[in-house]
Amino acid sequence: MLGPTPSTRRGTIAPTMTTNTPVPIVVAEGDGIGPEITRATLHMLEAAGASLAPEFIDIGEKVYLRGHSAGIESGSWEKLRRTKVFLKGPITTPQGGGYKSLNVTVRKMLGLYANVRPCVSYHPYVDSLQKNVDLVIVRENEEDLYAGIEHRQSDEVYQCLKLISRPGCERICRYAFEYARVNGRKKVTCMTKDNIMKITDGLFHQVFDQVATEYPNIAADHMIIDIGAARIATRPADFDVVVTLNLYGDIISDIAAEVTGSVGLGGSANVGDQCAMFEAVHGSAPDIAGKGVANPSGMLLGAIAMLVHVGQAQVATRLHNAWLETIEEGIHTADIYSEKVSTKRVGTEEFTEAVIERLGQSPQKLTPVNYVGGALLTLNTTVAATIPAKKDRVGVDVFVHWLGVPDTLGTELGALNGDGLELTMISNRGVKVWPDGIPETRCTDHWRCRFETLVPGKPVTVMQILSLILRLGNAGFDPVKTEHLFFFDGKPGFSLGQGQ
Amino acid sequence: MLGPTPSTRRGTIAPTMTTNTPVPIVVAEGDGIGPEITRATLHMLEAAGASLAPEFIDIGEKVYLRGHSAGIESGSWEKLRRTKVFLKGPITTPQGGGYKSLNVTVRKMLGLYANVRPCVSYHPYVDSLQKNVDLVIVRENEEDLYAGIEHRQSDEVYQCLKLISRPGCERICRYAFEYARVNGRKKVTCMTKDNIMKITDGLFHQVFDQVATEYPNIAADHMIIDIGAARIATRPADFDVVVTLNLYGDIISDIAAEVTGSVGLGGSANVGDQCAMFEAVHGSAPDIAGKGVANPSGMLLGAIAMLVHVGQAQVATRLHNAWLETIEEGIHTADIYSEKVSTKRVGTEEFTEAVIERLGQSPQKLTPVNYVGGALLTLNTTVAATIPAKKDRVGVDVFVHWLGVPDTLGTELGALNGDGLELTMISNRGVKVWPDGIPETRCTDHWRCRFETLVPGKPVTVMQILSLILRLGNAGFDPVKTEHLFFFDGKPGFSLGQGQ
Repeated sequence: MLGPTPSTRRGTIAPTMTTNTPVPIVVAEGDGIGPEITRATLHMLEAAGASLAPEFIDIGEKVYLRGHSAGIESGSWEKLRRTKVFLKGPITTPQGGGYKSLNVTVRKMLGLYANVRPCVSYHPYVDSLQKNVDLVIVRENEEDLYAGIEHRQSDEVYQCLKLISRPGCERICRYAFEYARVNGRKKVTCMTKDNIMKITDGLFHQVFDQVATEYPNIAADHMIIDIGAARIATRPADFDVVVTLNLYGDIISDIAAEVTGSVGLGGSANVGDQCAMFEAVHGSAPDIAGKGVANPSGMLLGAIAMLVHVGQAQVATRLHNAWLETIEEGIHTADIYSEKVSTKRVGTEEFTEAVIERLGQSPQKLTPVNYVGGALLTLNTTVAATIPAKKDRVGVDVFVHWLGVPDTLGTELGALNGDGLELTMISNRGVKVWPDGIPETRCTDHWRCRFETLVPGKPVTVMQILSLILRLGNAGFDPVKTEHLFFFDGKPGFSLGQGQ
Repeated sequence: MLGPTPSTRRGTIAPTMTTNTPVPIVVAEGDGIGPEITRATLHMLEAAGASLAPEFIDIGEKVYLRGHSAGIESGSWEKLRRTKVFLKGPITTPQGGGYKSLNVTVRKMLGLYANVRPCVSYHPYVDSLQKNVDLVIVRENEEDLYAGIEHRQSDEVYQCLKLISRPGCERICRYAFEYARVNGRKKVTCMTKDNIMKITDGLFHQVFDQVATEYPNIAADHMIIDIGAARIATRPADFDVVVTLNLYGDIISDIAAEVTGSVGLGGSANVGDQCAMFEAVHGSAPDIAGKGVANPSGMLLGAIAMLVHVGQAQVATRLHNAWLETIEEGIHTADIYSEKVSTKRVGTEEFTEAVIERLGQSPQKLTPVNYVGGALLTLNTTVAATIPAKKDRVGVDVFVHWLGVPDTLGTELGALNGDGLELTMISNRGVKVWPDGIPETRCTDHWRCRFETLVPGKPVTVMQILSLILRLGNAGFDPVKTEHLFFFDGKPGFSLGQGQ
């Protein structure tokens, strides 16, 4: 399909940066409109002179339904690991339990820690609520609630773990600043909810501030995610590069895409130290699948980022400018068609041919791109080696599944004090209910019981904790989870209970 | 201040629904602009004829700095519990560690499970990105990541627990539908991220669907939060009542306020079965404190909801309509002043007097309110009794702090198999890394090691788990947390690892 010799059928810019050996990549067409937009994209890549050797894999619905809970077959990993480049169509995850997100799995398995999502308004050629937007969201891609570690622990209570690591925070913050530096951007804004999650989001904010000091020429600021998301909605032109945690990044990416009217036009890169995955930001749109009306632009812009990534920046520039010219001329698929500005309503194939016919042209009003010598996506984000802290175990939060009132629990558990551990607090859904709780606090059947060492500065052993839990079990309690309490270099590594 | 006899100095509608006995409430002025907007609000309440007996408490910065980590003194709880009604000014939480959110503490201690935030555009009198908006966000207020249970567990990894309960989900979903029913609203939209968090957010969605079936006359739909937030930003007029989890509700409330241009005009109610708290949605704005320019409207609208709550709906109606008339006449504080539509730029005091002068009047263009006989906030949300499931302990996720490569860990831990428990999977940040991991997966020093019973259907005991952890400890491993694995009525209550 994409042959060894760069095509020069149309246009004149020879892709001099490409090698003669086609670059192997893995392509998955995906579900819904995936096959048609993937084929359209490959067609445009070929016409522009990209030198690629695609290998195809199956992903998505049919793979899930064959019984692979991650939507990808084990044999596909070898191809992904060998080529290290993945152009991925949108997929449909079947309804029903047990299926894991393919995107999350691929990102984490391949160490694709950075999701890079440019968000641009093409006003007045595409109807936008917000004009003059040109921001890039750098979303942490491996951590946060997306670890997908969930447990039902009692009749009433279900839990999901939010996990944040210091190297993960440093790597993504460093990526955001390096991206800003390499691409000549002026400001990086960090968004967290560290007024509530002081330890996890607090870490992200703190690491951001540290990394920022190494980039004195790039402005750095921080916003609480609720205000930040609202400002992305109302004043996106105020932002340049935004770096944030996985879940928040998911939400603000969609807001930014919607307010610029570019959901169908967004491409995204998922980048690691070794591998990278490129895709459209939109979904598989099964309602319009097979009708030949889908807009291939999102996938194309993902593929253009891929071209830059594999060293074919001139082809990328040529193709992106032809696409901008097509948009500017008003040749629009149904999703962005507007009587006010569009000149022609086209289907997938006609749009594809229109872009190909414009290879070698550049837009007159929209800003042309030039990737040559810039816009690399694999950036140097070496993080500081972890320095082991002096870690002292000072107690344990034991969670029990139990029905009753707090004071009864306090009394019964207090009777199990001993061997260096003493009950200091019981909370329910985080609120301290013993000692000195109030009856208005509504309690579930899931109680966090904090036992701490009697002597400050005197650590306890795992054995002391096991023996405590054994006493609880023998007294008829049902321990469902434990969180050990540690001091790191003399400072507590755990939060207080609300009201404590 | 607010005396026993309803004031009739201005206007003529006697507050016939009020009793002659003033209703005791607790008032806290808070920080920053808090004192000036609280006084302005109380002045308007008095002038409108509210029959209230306020008792004052201190909250916020000065209380934090006196050493109360929740920003409230223990003596204040008695007043709150006795009066059950709290009108709260905005507060400033001091920088630095150890402080817990006052709002979260009050909400949870008093069981204020529902945050009710109406969001209205006052176009064209207040500059709005979005017109014709009249939606209400019903935010779950006690659960989610706001439990504030955080633990640092290794040199690299920090954790926050997201806790969701079935009764909590049912109560808030029921509240949303009851609110819709009582207030004549047509649709309730649920927002979750259940494509990723299938167990926790999945529960919320599932309970929503169940409750919806009891309200056949109210439309019900569900959106993934990323798209949902984007649609609140771009098409808020499409929404009526929105119900969602705590964190998502926080984010979309701010988006809705920003796109309607009403951050300074938003009031919010926090409602439980027994108590309720009313406040402005904005913060303490220390930069303009003491200058006499702050807009008291947010606090006033919170107080108007409070009047309805305490049975003074006629006073509430009268005061709200006078406020609408003031806005419509273009008498605006600096935050909403616009040369296009405003007629007079006023300070806090002048705005307050303008509202008072208009008591008895109603807006001509904006829709007047009428609370009489409706808009109650305490709603019947009795939830189904929890039916205990048959619960079988089938294994444990032991998390260890360890440095090395997955296969070594797999081999060393596998050697500790026995006594009915066998290592079946190791994951790092949720991704399966043993067996059959790939080297590209980036690992932290925090490993989730899943041990399960050898014989399907044969439960294990707490003792078996403790003895496993003892073997781990004796072999030199550092167990930092455990999550017991349960089947509930024969179905697994835990998720698979990514790639498993």
